[in-house]
Amino acid sequence: MADIVELSTDARSPHPLDIQTAPGITRIALSNPPANALSIAVMEALLAALRDAGADPDCRVVVLAAHGKTFSAGHDLKELTAHRADADGGRAFFEKTMRLCAELMQAIVRLPQPVIAEVNGIATAAGCQLVASCDLAIASEEAQFQTPGVHIGLFCSTPMVALSRNLSPKHAMEMLLTGERIDARSAREFGLVNRVVPPEYLGTVVGRYATTIASKSKTTVRIGKKAFYEQAEMGLSDAYDYAARVMVENMMETDAEEGIGAFLEKRKPKWSGR
Amino acid sequence: MADIVELSTDARSPHPLDIQTAPGITRIALSNPPANALSIAVMEALLAALRDAGADPDCRVVVLAAHGKTFSAGHDLKELTAHRADADGGRAFFEKTMRLCAELMQAIVRLPQPVIAEVNGIATAAGCQLVASCDLAIASEEAQFQTPGVHIGLFCSTPMVALSRNLSPKHAMEMLLTGERIDARSAREFGLVNRVVPPEYLGTVVGRYATTIASKSKTTVRIGKKAFYEQAEMGLSDAYDYAARVMVENMMETDAEEGIGAFLEKRKPKWSGR
Amino acid sequence: MADIVELSTDARSPHPLDIQTAPGITRIALSNPPANALSIAVMEALLAALRDAGADPDCRVVVLAAHGKTFSAGHDLKELTAHRADADGGRAFFEKTMRLCAELMQAIVRLPQPVIAEVNGIATAAGCQLVASCDLAIASEEAQFQTPGVHIGLFCSTPMVALSRNLSPKHAMEMLLTGERIDARSAREFGLVNRVVPPEYLGTVVGRYATTIASKSKTTVRIGKKAFYEQAEMGLSDAYDYAARVMVENMMETDAEEGIGAFLEKRKPKWSGR
Repeated sequence: MADIVELSTDARSPHPLDIQTAPGITRIALSNPPANALSIAVMEALLAALRDAGADPDCRVVVLAAHGKTFSAGHDLKELTAHRADADGGRAFFEKTMRLCAELMQAIVRLPQPVIAEVNGIATAAGCQLVASCDLAIASEEAQFQTPGVHIGLFCSTPMVALSRNLSPKHAMEMLLTGERIDARSAREFGLVNRVVPPEYLGTVVGRYATTIASKSKTTVRIGKKAFYEQAEMGLSDAYDYAARVMVENMMETDAEEGIGAFLEKRKPKWSGR
Repeated sequence: MADIVELSTDARSPHPLDIQTAPGITRIALSNPPANALSIAVMEALLAALRDAGADPDCRVVVLAAHGKTFSAGHDLKELTAHRADADGGRAFFEKTMRLCAELMQAIVRLPQPVIAEVNGIATAAGCQLVASCDLAIASEEAQFQTPGVHIGLFCSTPMVALSRNLSPKHAMEMLLTGERIDARSAREFGLVNRVVPPEYLGTVVGRYATTIASKSKTTVRIGKKAFYEQAEMGLSDAYDYAARVMVENMMETDAEEGIGAFLEKRKPKWSGR
Repeated sequence: MADIVELSTDARSPHPLDIQTAPGITRIALSNPPANALSIAVMEALLAALRDAGADPDCRVVVLAAHGKTFSAGHDLKELTAHRADADGGRAFFEKTMRLCAELMQAIVRLPQPVIAEVNGIATAAGCQLVASCDLAIASEEAQFQTPGVHIGLFCSTPMVALSRNLSPKHAMEMLLTGERIDARSAREFGLVNRVVPPEYLGTVVGRYATTIASKSKTTVRIGKKAFYEQAEMGLSDAYDYAARVMVENMMETDAEEGIGAFLEKRKPKWSGR
């Protein structure tokens, strides 16, 4: 991947992210090992990076990765604890943290481009939630997943929002109530990740998914991703009314005309690039 | 299966369906190979056939099958493309198509009788949606499933409605975003089909499911299927209020009195046949 | 487990439940073998036992088990049938039964403490619903699951409420429409139970889950369980708003302060015990 674009130190605190771009692909890596903790600074940087990617006309897919052996250990507990000394016992800071976290996770879901989690190691609490919030997730065989809040008196209640929309209730509840780790294979079986690969192939496999998605019409993928999450919250009848309208609008786009035409003429489509 | 009842040519265009009936069972086969495309004519014929089956006092279960090596390739792209020459660029025709498709899929869900998909080969786009919309699905080992709209600039947004109500989000998204095929075994693992059998046993296994369901009280099955989809859209408390009322009404039916009586007396029940 | 506390005979009819308590753990066993049928008396006793456990300051987790070789065969069909002789054909009694059943299942979901089903044998109809309604379920290899109402003209419409919130629609529909048994391994694969163990280890494994959960902060677990089911019924945006507020309130609890403090200081937390 070319064009290494690191965030400047003054814009956001010391290099919390390593952002690289390749044709059509933006790769955002948490670069604050070993924990890759989601401090306020990291969450703000990640939110800004997602917004930049969302607005980048060249970006067709985002990969969310991490440096080091841990994907992310979730919130920065030292940062949270330091604010217990605040006049309000930390309440305002905790509210800021949790609101920012909820905003970040929804920014992934609402991003026009698909987001693929590349999970190299353990993902815990809000780190596990990041994976659950992505559209796709590919995990190394060495990855593990955990919502350990129950061990420290703080139930993983925001992670559960994403987790419970990916896993069946009993599997989600087991993770939340026991706080125990599951391995990558179980995560695949439970629906949290799409694929488990040997660590040395992780980048290659994620790259193949990203390249595949980047080769499609950007308009079409944007229409489809949005529709997926919108219709998921509707009853069947409303979902069909909505999806039928989406299909008609999609048909009227030049990329659908080109794509269907190319298919019927047995040639490669040329997308508008928008 | 006896009583081969083919649709007459003039009623709907050249034999889009092969409809056969056996005691209690209506078998509707798409008979427009190789693609078994869902043109307007085929969708209208299918909708009419479902309505006929729904109103048929002898029909207790419907099997949805296909002739040839493909289950269905989805919408008729040539038909859609031909209408780009319309004054409105095809919009009215696309609306008609998508509305009809949505109506057809919901007709399966709303049919009083259970519908079993017998999936002989690849089911793509709206063809895959047909399978996802059925109450049960049995697939040949040679069956494959695909939502390839993204390849041709037209995201499978109506298929996603059915797909995302059967598969976990990450599995559904992988199919929708990559457009790649999954095999029957993966479809079973992901929850899209109930069972995968060698092709030579497909008819036999589907027949066994159909015969089992046809041997039950028609009233009871109708009550239960309707309740299943109605309560699925409710919160837990409302779902229980509703289901408790359904159970009471079901208890007041003569078939419940007969069935429970027969069970306690260790004899075979005689259903009312309604 | 110590402190065997049996329900007195006069409080509720002849020993329908065997209730034992150990530190933090309440074990409620259906003790009316062979069928462990859910008669009105048993459901009332179970509801009362759950309420007692819910209000017991020492109870941190509930195990729902059964004596004999059957977990529970569901409603008492003889009791139901006897009331067909009532002036109203049984309607009032059926309403009482179904309302009580719905209340019982929701009492499990709403109980402040987690409930673990320990499934020793076959669980049918409302017995299967009991398992589906628990937060976690551990099954013996000899356990089986069945919603056989369709065999007796009475569709398992209240069991479907719990079943369809645990299993994918096609798996749930197969159980409901065919009425056939699934084994413990399939139940695990479909998401109905968390784990399948040899019968001789069932008590040990359930005990380990219970002990793990009982070792956590009671306040934290109560907050988390409630939030899980509340947010599950919301759209994504509302769920995040709600869960973020829950996290803030949880952070303000002394158990979170203690738990996070203990983690940062690498010592064992001392929970408030509330």
